[in-house]
Amino acid sequence: IVYLENNIIQATKGNYRHFMLKEIFEQPITIGQTLATFMDEFGKPANGFEDIDFSKYKRLFIVACGTAYYAGAVAKYWFEQVAGIPVEIDIASEFRYRQPILDKDCLFVAISQSGETADTLAALRYAKAHNVGTLALVNVTTSTMAREADIFLPINAGPEIGVASTKAFTSQLAALACFALAMSEHTSFKDKETIMRFTKALTELPDTVSETLRLDAQIEKLCLGLSSAKSVFYLGRDMNFPIALEAALKLKEISYIHAEGYAAGELKHGPIALIEPGTPVIVLAAQDPLFDKTVSNLREVSARGAKVYLITDKAGAKIASEMAEEVIILPECESFVSPLIVTIAIQLMAYHTAVHLGTDVDQPRNLAKSVTVE
Amino acid sequence: IVYLENNIIQATKGNYRHFMLKEIFEQPITIGQTLATFMDEFGKPANGFEDIDFSKYKRLFIVACGTAYYAGAVAKYWFEQVAGIPVEIDIASEFRYRQPILDKDCLFVAISQSGETADTLAALRYAKAHNVGTLALVNVTTSTMAREADIFLPINAGPEIGVASTKAFTSQLAALACFALAMSEHTSFKDKETIMRFTKALTELPDTVSETLRLDAQIEKLCLGLSSAKSVFYLGRDMNFPIALEAALKLKEISYIHAEGYAAGELKHGPIALIEPGTPVIVLAAQDPLFDKTVSNLREVSARGAKVYLITDKAGAKIASEMAEEVIILPECESFVSPLIVTIAIQLMAYHTAVHLGTDVDQPRNLAKSVTVE
Repeated sequence: IVYLENNIIQATKGNYRHFMLKEIFEQPITIGQTLATFMDEFGKPANGFEDIDFSKYKRLFIVACGTAYYAGAVAKYWFEQVAGIPVEIDIASEFRYRQPILDKDCLFVAISQSGETADTLAALRYAKAHNVGTLALVNVTTSTMAREADIFLPINAGPEIGVASTKAFTSQLAALACFALAMSEHTSFKDKETIMRFTKALTELPDTVSETLRLDAQIEKLCLGLSSAKSVFYLGRDMNFPIALEAALKLKEISYIHAEGYAAGELKHGPIALIEPGTPVIVLAAQDPLFDKTVSNLREVSARGAKVYLITDKAGAKIASEMAEEVIILPECESFVSPLIVTIAIQLMAYHTAVHLGTDVDQPRNLAKSVTVE
Repeated sequence: IVYLENNIIQATKGNYRHFMLKEIFEQPITIGQTLATFMDEFGKPANGFEDIDFSKYKRLFIVACGTAYYAGAVAKYWFEQVAGIPVEIDIASEFRYRQPILDKDCLFVAISQSGETADTLAALRYAKAHNVGTLALVNVTTSTMAREADIFLPINAGPEIGVASTKAFTSQLAALACFALAMSEHTSFKDKETIMRFTKALTELPDTVSETLRLDAQIEKLCLGLSSAKSVFYLGRDMNFPIALEAALKLKEISYIHAEGYAAGELKHGPIALIEPGTPVIVLAAQDPLFDKTVSNLREVSARGAKVYLITDKAGAKIASEMAEEVIILPECESFVSPLIVTIAIQLMAYHTAVHLGTDVDQPRNLAKSVTVE
């Protein structure tokens, strides 16, 4: 672990039982640090992007592993919907060997907490060797990726001790959200008013995250029911699809329960066969234009006896809570920032389920903090 | 079900216990039918592609659901590595709602057995509405997609009765392989000799598939050990990564075991935490330039007590069989066609595991043959 300069957070557990819980609760601060890194005094995402020649890049290629890959998968929706910039994403271990075709008008983006992830570093070097502009989004500023990429964006989440990434993930998201907004300035794909609304929601994130953390006691309790499960499914659409994948990974990593995330629309194409009475299905869906679609998926698993946990907002709860065994109501927020809010809830779920099971939360079996060998 | 004209295969089980098994064993014939559809009398993939203006398209966008999506994911490797054409793939239920950006130089490809899959059809209509060229790769020639797409390629696999797709999947693959080779003629990305070798391997596929089917008795036996598993993992790299996903889906659909496929390189980024003594891990890896990497993954899960099933070729077995509990040795073939050969083995594995468990193989619970509503 390399300690970041100017970092106010110490690498001690303080009053928390585990580093992971401490890091989950640090997120209002760490997300704030990330936003402060990229936003100017007027709350505009301007800092740090000066070196990017936005007029040059017509598409992005985001490459990462594990949790960082899911941050990239959320960002794909942001860049496309907010900046009108098509994004391709790939798993680094696949990208590096499949001889991908990189256009000259494409910016290569590597995401890695440590900045040392072996496959992601190899992918970055592949892109450089193919004369494509490269950008590294990392936490550790002294890392190899920070040095080797043409442009380097620090997420400033402070040292992360828990092996299962939490605050680094939300800081990656916050940085990518700033990046997408900065890019939207240049493409003028969305109207100014919407962009201002999104920017405001982003600056308010530390407060919204604090509010979300108040759900801790409720989530701790409902996780008792989850801890005896053999299989758990997470369903989401749009930006909640990669969050469903991250949620499943988090639960896997520390509770060793076989969890899997799915695009809710894929449910009927196979995974629904696994639903039997009592199977926990966690549905991530705020009330938005896709809500009805997801509720129809919820109804299907519910009809087959699944124990549905609905993570939603007030409006969503009003419509669908009858069909769910447990409902977690998140604070109201712009859909643009909702992936970060949903993330807080699924992190707490994974954490408390693992604690109920008595696993070694900060040092889960078989896992290393950074995968610096292949 | 719409019966195809000129179809020699009748919709009866014949001597087979299930339609699924019959359809698995039909594949030398159905793949042959597909190849005959697209190859001319000189064994060149020329027929059916006359309407595609290859000079116009600089990239492909493949959209599908479930098994057909995995066919598209394999094809991504083919088009990129053989024709030098970048391919983006997306799940139809995500694509249709996320307002994707489609360049004018992009050909939209929809894959669907029935040609009626609701989300894929909506995605096709989205592409048409955005003035992008559209192509539908379907089995049912009288389907809506066949009618609505600008170009329509029939895979000619004959009627598929088993809910879990088998022969339609391999015919989708065979058709896409022909398509990629036809495109490579125009891009001259690969040298002629390699393309001829790949083409030859493709024409020999019916024989190679027949040979692979002889592994049936061995696979039936080793599935006894699989049928008691709670969780099963499939690992693969490159084109075997989507096959690992399809393998997991197949096992899920008919045996109701929680199976999951992973890019082998992602193993250390989380899923390895789930490996405990006795967990079945099925490794899909022929001896190729990535074999050593996959063997190192195999070693890691093996060290944690996983029960490793290695699906490989003779050369791979020589190197790695000591580390595996069970080894399935596939016939030698060009890596270009190996995804189809590996598919035969994983289909048989799913089938026999389900039969051992006594599930309703042809009509698995909760599933419909075609998902024609959202």
